[in-house]
Amino acid sequence: MPENLSLGVCYYPEHWPESMWADDARRMVDIGISRVRIGEFAWSRIEPSKGDFNWEWLDRAMDTLGQHDLEVILGTPTATPPKWLIDAHPDILAYDAEGRPRKFGSRRHYCFSSLTYRREAARICTLMAERYAGHPALFAWQTDNEYGCHDTTRSWSPEAGKAFRLWLQDKYQGDVHALNTAWGTVFWSQEYTDFSQIDLPNMTVTEATPAHLLDFYRFSSDQVVAFNRMQCDILRAATPDKPIIHNFMGIYTGFDHFKVSEDLDIASWDSYPLGFLDVAPFPLEDKHTYMRQGHPDFTSFHHDLYRACGKDGRWWVMEQQPGPVNWAHHNPAPLPGMVRTWSWEAFAHGAETVSYFRWRQAPFAQEQFHAGLNLVNNDEAPATPEARQVAAEISELANTPVTGKAQIALMFSYEAKWLFDIQPQGASWSYWGLVLTWYGAARRLGLDIDIISPDADISAYKIVLVPSLPILPDGFVARLKNSKAHIILGPRTGSKTEDVQVPDTLAPGALQEVLPLQIRHSESLRDDITLDGKFGASDVGASRWLDHVATDLKPAAMSDGTGLLFAHNNLSFFTTVPDGPFIAQLLAELCTEKGIATTLLPEHLRIRRRGDVVFAFNYGPDGATIPDNIRSADGALVFGSWDLPAAGTACWRST
Amino acid sequence: MPENLSLGVCYYPEHWPESMWADDARRMVDIGISRVRIGEFAWSRIEPSKGDFNWEWLDRAMDTLGQHDLEVILGTPTATPPKWLIDAHPDILAYDAEGRPRKFGSRRHYCFSSLTYRREAARICTLMAERYAGHPALFAWQTDNEYGCHDTTRSWSPEAGKAFRLWLQDKYQGDVHALNTAWGTVFWSQEYTDFSQIDLPNMTVTEATPAHLLDFYRFSSDQVVAFNRMQCDILRAATPDKPIIHNFMGIYTGFDHFKVSEDLDIASWDSYPLGFLDVAPFPLEDKHTYMRQGHPDFTSFHHDLYRACGKDGRWWVMEQQPGPVNWAHHNPAPLPGMVRTWSWEAFAHGAETVSYFRWRQAPFAQEQFHAGLNLVNNDEAPATPEARQVAAEISELANTPVTGKAQIALMFSYEAKWLFDIQPQGASWSYWGLVLTWYGAARRLGLDIDIISPDADISAYKIVLVPSLPILPDGFVARLKNSKAHIILGPRTGSKTEDVQVPDTLAPGALQEVLPLQIRHSESLRDDITLDGKFGASDVGASRWLDHVATDLKPAAMSDGTGLLFAHNNLSFFTTVPDGPFIAQLLAELCTEKGIATTLLPEHLRIRRRGDVVFAFNYGPDGATIPDNIRSADGALVFGSWDLPAAGTACWRST
Amino acid sequence: MPENLSLGVCYYPEHWPESMWADDARRMVDIGISRVRIGEFAWSRIEPSKGDFNWEWLDRAMDTLGQHDLEVILGTPTATPPKWLIDAHPDILAYDAEGRPRKFGSRRHYCFSSLTYRREAARICTLMAERYAGHPALFAWQTDNEYGCHDTTRSWSPEAGKAFRLWLQDKYQGDVHALNTAWGTVFWSQEYTDFSQIDLPNMTVTEATPAHLLDFYRFSSDQVVAFNRMQCDILRAATPDKPIIHNFMGIYTGFDHFKVSEDLDIASWDSYPLGFLDVAPFPLEDKHTYMRQGHPDFTSFHHDLYRACGKDGRWWVMEQQPGPVNWAHHNPAPLPGMVRTWSWEAFAHGAETVSYFRWRQAPFAQEQFHAGLNLVNNDEAPATPEARQVAAEISELANTPVTGKAQIALMFSYEAKWLFDIQPQGASWSYWGLVLTWYGAARRLGLDIDIISPDADISAYKIVLVPSLPILPDGFVARLKNSKAHIILGPRTGSKTEDVQVPDTLAPGALQEVLPLQIRHSESLRDDITLDGKFGASDVGASRWLDHVATDLKPAAMSDGTGLLFAHNNLSFFTTVPDGPFIAQLLAELCTEKGIATTLLPEHLRIRRRGDVVFAFNYGPDGATIPDNIRSADGALVFGSWDLPAAGTACWRST
Repeated sequence: MPENLSLGVCYYPEHWPESMWADDARRMVDIGISRVRIGEFAWSRIEPSKGDFNWEWLDRAMDTLGQHDLEVILGTPTATPPKWLIDAHPDILAYDAEGRPRKFGSRRHYCFSSLTYRREAARICTLMAERYAGHPALFAWQTDNEYGCHDTTRSWSPEAGKAFRLWLQDKYQGDVHALNTAWGTVFWSQEYTDFSQIDLPNMTVTEATPAHLLDFYRFSSDQVVAFNRMQCDILRAATPDKPIIHNFMGIYTGFDHFKVSEDLDIASWDSYPLGFLDVAPFPLEDKHTYMRQGHPDFTSFHHDLYRACGKDGRWWVMEQQPGPVNWAHHNPAPLPGMVRTWSWEAFAHGAETVSYFRWRQAPFAQEQFHAGLNLVNNDEAPATPEARQVAAEISELANTPVTGKAQIALMFSYEAKWLFDIQPQGASWSYWGLVLTWYGAARRLGLDIDIISPDADISAYKIVLVPSLPILPDGFVARLKNSKAHIILGPRTGSKTEDVQVPDTLAPGALQEVLPLQIRHSESLRDDITLDGKFGASDVGASRWLDHVATDLKPAAMSDGTGLLFAHNNLSFFTTVPDGPFIAQLLAELCTEKGIATTLLPEHLRIRRRGDVVFAFNYGPDGATIPDNIRSADGALVFGSWDLPAAGTACWRST
Repeated sequence: MPENLSLGVCYYPEHWPESMWADDARRMVDIGISRVRIGEFAWSRIEPSKGDFNWEWLDRAMDTLGQHDLEVILGTPTATPPKWLIDAHPDILAYDAEGRPRKFGSRRHYCFSSLTYRREAARICTLMAERYAGHPALFAWQTDNEYGCHDTTRSWSPEAGKAFRLWLQDKYQGDVHALNTAWGTVFWSQEYTDFSQIDLPNMTVTEATPAHLLDFYRFSSDQVVAFNRMQCDILRAATPDKPIIHNFMGIYTGFDHFKVSEDLDIASWDSYPLGFLDVAPFPLEDKHTYMRQGHPDFTSFHHDLYRACGKDGRWWVMEQQPGPVNWAHHNPAPLPGMVRTWSWEAFAHGAETVSYFRWRQAPFAQEQFHAGLNLVNNDEAPATPEARQVAAEISELANTPVTGKAQIALMFSYEAKWLFDIQPQGASWSYWGLVLTWYGAARRLGLDIDIISPDADISAYKIVLVPSLPILPDGFVARLKNSKAHIILGPRTGSKTEDVQVPDTLAPGALQEVLPLQIRHSESLRDDITLDGKFGASDVGASRWLDHVATDLKPAAMSDGTGLLFAHNNLSFFTTVPDGPFIAQLLAELCTEKGIATTLLPEHLRIRRRGDVVFAFNYGPDGATIPDNIRSADGALVFGSWDLPAAGTACWRST
Repeated sequence: MPENLSLGVCYYPEHWPESMWADDARRMVDIGISRVRIGEFAWSRIEPSKGDFNWEWLDRAMDTLGQHDLEVILGTPTATPPKWLIDAHPDILAYDAEGRPRKFGSRRHYCFSSLTYRREAARICTLMAERYAGHPALFAWQTDNEYGCHDTTRSWSPEAGKAFRLWLQDKYQGDVHALNTAWGTVFWSQEYTDFSQIDLPNMTVTEATPAHLLDFYRFSSDQVVAFNRMQCDILRAATPDKPIIHNFMGIYTGFDHFKVSEDLDIASWDSYPLGFLDVAPFPLEDKHTYMRQGHPDFTSFHHDLYRACGKDGRWWVMEQQPGPVNWAHHNPAPLPGMVRTWSWEAFAHGAETVSYFRWRQAPFAQEQFHAGLNLVNNDEAPATPEARQVAAEISELANTPVTGKAQIALMFSYEAKWLFDIQPQGASWSYWGLVLTWYGAARRLGLDIDIISPDADISAYKIVLVPSLPILPDGFVARLKNSKAHIILGPRTGSKTEDVQVPDTLAPGALQEVLPLQIRHSESLRDDITLDGKFGASDVGASRWLDHVATDLKPAAMSDGTGLLFAHNNLSFFTTVPDGPFIAQLLAELCTEKGIATTLLPEHLRIRRRGDVVFAFNYGPDGATIPDNIRSADGALVFGSWDLPAAGTACWRST
């Protein structure tokens, strides 16, 4: 099997009689699994009461897995501090936005700002790192588990209040007048004379000051960074050569994943295509069409996002949905073949490892309806033959090339999401809607896309999509100037300063250095209002937002006399939210201009290249045919066929 | 008037000048009322301040009623402890799930676990029992009033926490490891080392452990049982020969009504057909069609349910809606004739007494829009002539037979409802929807139905409907084996152990002893997804749930290759939620097989037998004709006619 | 410019460098603005820490404005107490209905019942009044800002509890038995033996006693009256000749605006036609049609309401929307011309001053998306040319007459709104819906309307509309008897006593002295239920409510045998909620009878007379033609034209 493509599984030896472990390991290997994640919820088994340790069972579990040449990813158990610890130190608990402690009784019951918990988490990490640093089965570490899950990034506890004041004092260099100016506290007589006066921005009579909120969101993100860094420092000191991983989630933006990832070696995420389809704000029509397949672009978007997070693009799927889950509103089963297709979509986007969650369905507790590779009675579940097939197919792809840089990039900003959450200005505004529409339009054209952070170097791309970036980071305009790429800027880009203020020069702020256009005022519109416009000879649609500008530029698209799109040199700028066909048309024209081949794919089909290998995936409920112009000779097929069944995957060499 | 059919009324002498009492009593008798419930909210009048008693007014009220030969049902006043008591003992208050005391200022402001309140409730009950034990007007006791109303069964107070820990210690016989195993606390590092560590399962970061929740729901139900038993013990000691009654509610499942009823002599309920139609989850179309009549099956279901609760099937309607109420979202008036029809529907199902709520509309406080038999100005309200007519009709039914056992039973489980509330697995899952659909299908076929508890003896029935029973009680499978009945088992039956775990042998657990079928995995589906299937030659529909099974049985109904219904010996098993026509078709076929006559009734018509007497009720907004095949000779009509007007009732002898 | 029509602007010198002030003032004058409101959020600048005052900047701001002959309305800064004050006295904070303090961090963070805050507010008002009493630029005072905004009238704090008990003791003259009788506390054993036992009516197990709630609502309103009176007393003592104004809001009913206004000289309100359209419960269709114009009757209603509040009818628009705002769910921009049209609609209804909010858009804090007359960069915003045009047009209307009394009055009751909030009896019941439908029907007929309070003298009107008045104030029936007006009484009028009880004589209570009709029972209906009726030869519609009456009167309109409308002498009485055409038809007939001319206006056109001047306003998205029969000779046009463009206004002399 190629070094760079492997299968894994998440395993909880503590849930099962020790007598089953060796057989479990043997059967993992038999399926073609080589990596096993364990340990991340095991604190109460490791330390049942204060200072009373029981490592031996974990030693034996590691030994057993190692004896079968399985590589272990060992999770630090900090996502679930045990009851005795909470009882001794209730200051560990986070508080919700209504000022109430979030009690013990499930998981993630800690505040990132609790100094007690920092100390306790460091203690258990250090002990674990010391004990297993030299264990031959240890392949990598996972820090904690799904930071932020259940909305746990932001805590409104007294501990968070203390830490926030210190953070502000640091940010504003001890100058409370600088804070007053940045926040505009004069507005409602909110001026502070001392940092000690500053509360958390919750439970206010009406909305809190936006800059107060944004600083609190930034602070909360930084607390996750600091907590994770503390663990990474401990683990890296113990095992400098072992990769450190964290398993992020989908559609979660509570903290800046780019920044947390700076301390990791490999980014990973937990991919639940059906669960996310059900709980994310997709239209009902999509929830029907893709009920048992997942949305064709949602999962890919996250693959590309976490490839951007990982050091040198290294990333995994740490938890791959293998059947129905328990946590969505409704939990259907994947179409037969879909688990294989999801696995290959991940590898196509550059994943090193796809790890199924979980080895065996748990008969008890919150997730007892969550499928695994095995049923509760240890029979194989439907996903297992598909995993076995993936393992076999991997071996046909010896020397699989690494995914290279794409020609198209899409810029994603966590801070943008926070700002829009704080100050949407229109209830119909949706940053995720904007991002996924633009991403989907590109993917439907058969393009490979890199997600990039707002601080990224854009010099190597031919086209850069910036769905919206209200606060321009340092150097952003300079990077635009120096780029040969065509940059498509979405609405509200450049509309705010770092302090959430309207720029002195009005929106789009510093962008005016490169774009001779000034926004005089802006409208937000209900989402049932459509702006019908013309783009060249085509009818196009837009909605939700409309800037009114002063400019000498002639609009590239208009609706009822108002410009929707302006172009200048290598920039295109939207004053509205274009619908999918509108952004797709602009993108297709620019690709033609830049010599990038595009193909409008059949509605439910998607493709992805990895070096010279091309993959095609059918997300539709029926069969689909791969278009002629992207096929190679028949002999180039590695697996699959040009006519794909529902849930089918094909792979061929492009040359 | 036959002994076993009587009319009653709820009366509040404390609301009216004493000068009105004698005339009230006289007019009650004139209407044909023989029983009067009083006293259940009168504590502040009985004991205006601590130890300062004023029983005399109540003595005189009892005397006045007794002088008119009215039989009094005397309510213990524990649903509304007075303010002085709450101020002295704030630990009496219940707490809501968000951890806040539920303040004085309305009613039911007490926690079932408050030891202080147990003592105080016992004190007032004892005093009342002693004072009125020998009063000649005393006919029966009512304990408290509508246990659980306003969601008051579950309290999240410190007192409840203490009591819960004791309950757990008792259940798990002091072995916290047994609890850990039962709850699966290893799952998220939640293992306890001592019972004192266990909190109430509220305000957790995400969902609490399901077994923790179910034990809390069981405990809360048991606290109601204990509170009621305490009152029953006191009352029974004082008056061994007086029946003890409690007035239950509709569509309320916070506690196990079968268990509370074990301490009662007679079960009763408060029947508000229009109020329940408006607040219960009926489709909008039904809310239109039955706006002034109430749903044709909802009220009957509860009649049958409380007949199952009462000792030897003894049951009453303690509060019968007589006109518009105040507490539904919208409060229309009954169609003329409907109060009579509701009364007869109750008697047809075996009620001994139908008691109207209330004698006279109160001009003040929360229920001033609630109709009575008299208006605020003491004029007769529209319901009164109908009550008078019912009284006259009762006298034509001398020697009315007692309702016997039906041939069909439907099993209802409070624990099933709790479990599905805790772990629905699909947002579309509805235990009430399932139960009422199955019940309604049977009733539309003209069948009489007994509701039975999961522990009931089923040997005497020909067909037993089990809409869903996830946790099989002890002996259930043995009872299936020993039964000659055909048992129709709904989806998820047998899917959980007593500890809310997936059975070792997978679902349907121990049912596999009698049904060779194993559920491999299950899907939950949005309620707008329909599974179109074939049952024999018929098109049928199903939804919401779909099990995938391993079995050698050939499906009796299928959709798209997946079995929806399996039959084996005397068992039918659904792997999905059948729609109304589907379950009706199966039921009709089985009735034919078992020699039970069925008639598909006109849409809004329903019938019910009591011995050799048949009743027909028209719930439609227009006239309806009683089908020929269920009529007797014209001379058999006791009252009514074969062509029923809207809201009409007919009654005839079947032989 | 006529004395009685002037333009104003809201200005925050503290937000801008002092160097800009003189130019700001000069440009205000240039536009035609003569009045400037300042100061209402400036406490933290005036008193940055306890006792440390900085009045000098405000002196200079006043001086600068005065030097340009601008008249200053100076706001007392009590809407935003500074942080140091809150930290020193946390008892200032209000509590929400769930018993939690509403924290500092935005505005209006005070409880009207806090004695500490009364003292502190008096202190700052006194100091401000003393300092500026003699300033030549001072024209008027504004007390506080938007009392009640963000739902701040009712506070559930311990301080409010204390004050409420004192208020009750006063109202019930120290007799707790009187309170028990009034509230009907016997109902659920809630009798009090001492005023100290009485809690605020929140967090009760189910709904609190309605009379308890209504008294709390009355108390809360009285606390606003008292707080405002305290300020008025201070200001009036310092400057007996300077008018005192408060700026009320739209669609806000937390306190009785008639009563608060008794202490003011001029009533004013903050008019945001687009913001209110979006957040108020208008049908979606209206939200589309009037997206950039606002609803044609909503703003006018408030103009008429606040004319009724102001002493001798004196009223202003203190804040006039000049462009998109920030606080509605969606914030479109006004159609070009609309700011002018809104300004003239206000003047047509008798406004003395229309003051735009705000001079310059703020770049920071909560309202940075709120348009002003100038952009953040100090360029003129789109509203400014329209303001300039209005100023020019004003000068053409020398000697504009004062608005006189209308022939039609509509009675509006804050207490009615409270009572229906407390006891709607039907979820579809909407007091605002009723009021705006009746008002809109009159306005669509081209009528001028006076809003009047329930205590108003009605002798001078020809027709009085009373959409609903459940509690009849003292003397109401006498006033009906003495009036020559035809009175149209809406449903539920007279249905309750002062203590929220059903009258002894049943509804409509004392109205029965003049109307021989008694309500026996009432139904509330879902809003999708329509009662189709006949009124004379016409088909009419009604909904939501239906009384069943005993009367010898023949119904003037019926549905399915039930009377919808009864007439007797000079009274019409609805037993239901008539739809717009139904009430319009009755009104049109009565106008004909009374010799009042009506014209059914084109759908989006409205007119308003001020003395002999007629104004027409086009609220439609397209052009509209003023009907011939209301035009004068062409030469009479002061401005505008008979064919009005979208957002257009015309003005002509009627003689």
